[in-house]
Amino acid sequence: MEYRNPVPTVDLIIRTPAGLVLIERKNEPHGMALPGGFVDEGETVENAAVREAMEETSLSVVLDDLFYVYSDPSRDPRKHTISIVFLASATGNPVAGDDAKSVLTVDEQSARNHTLVFDHGTILEDYFRFMQTGSRPLHS
Amino acid sequence: MEYRNPVPTVDLIIRTPAGLVLIERKNEPHGMALPGGFVDEGETVENAAVREAMEETSLSVVLDDLFYVYSDPSRDPRKHTISIVFLASATGNPVAGDDAKSVLTVDEQSARNHTLVFDHGTILEDYFRFMQTGSRPLHS
Repeated sequence: MEYRNPVPTVDLIIRTPAGLVLIERKNEPHGMALPGGFVDEGETVENAAVREAMEETSLSVVLDDLFYVYSDPSRDPRKHTISIVFLASATGNPVAGDDAKSVLTVDEQSARNHTLVFDHGTILEDYFRFMQTGSRPLHS
Repeated sequence: MEYRNPVPTVDLIIRTPAGLVLIERKNEPHGMALPGGFVDEGETVENAAVREAMEETSLSVVLDDLFYVYSDPSRDPRKHTISIVFLASATGNPVAGDDAKSVLTVDEQSARNHTLVFDHGTILEDYFRFMQTGSRPLHS
């Protein structure tokens, strides 16, 4: 009997002096997104987060906190993925790396003007609510 | 090119009036552990946590919070697994279900007298520290 499991990924909400970091994805599905990617076998989720931030935004981030884990089976059109989302900080300016066509920094208002792929719009709304209320998300 | 990813699991720190819930595992690796198990494709991590709690302890739990995600590649002797750990509450008394040989409830002192499998001892130490200091774990 073979069991099938969702595939773990990490995403990051990176806070920089110029705002939050979004990327324009080079791969399918195309569109704007939080930086992130798949966790490789043999690496921790924290290492995966730091690695993906560097690969996509050229930023050396410090992880501040685990934010939440998003696992709705329909969140990713390719297959069932689980996103482990970290809050992170960086001091420099992001530069698009290998897996990103472009990067930009946004404040809360302009973040809402972008349609993000996956459930990244929900993640950012949860984050803005958390920053206002201190309430951490708990989906069920 | 085939990518290999760690396999997601959930574990629970279940708080009951009689104490925290530990199980004696029926499957390898044998020993005492937090209740938990693999996340199935197509279910959310929250549903997996509630399901595993019921299957192993017969408790209908309420999830209180996401605690942390543990992903050291050596945490599970079978393969690289990621444990998404929830804090949960239940009012009844646990009864060993299908995947547990026995269940018991422990206070902090007696929890420390048990050697737990995987990294569940570390998880409980992180939890006791969190309850004392309010500091959430961040491993790196």
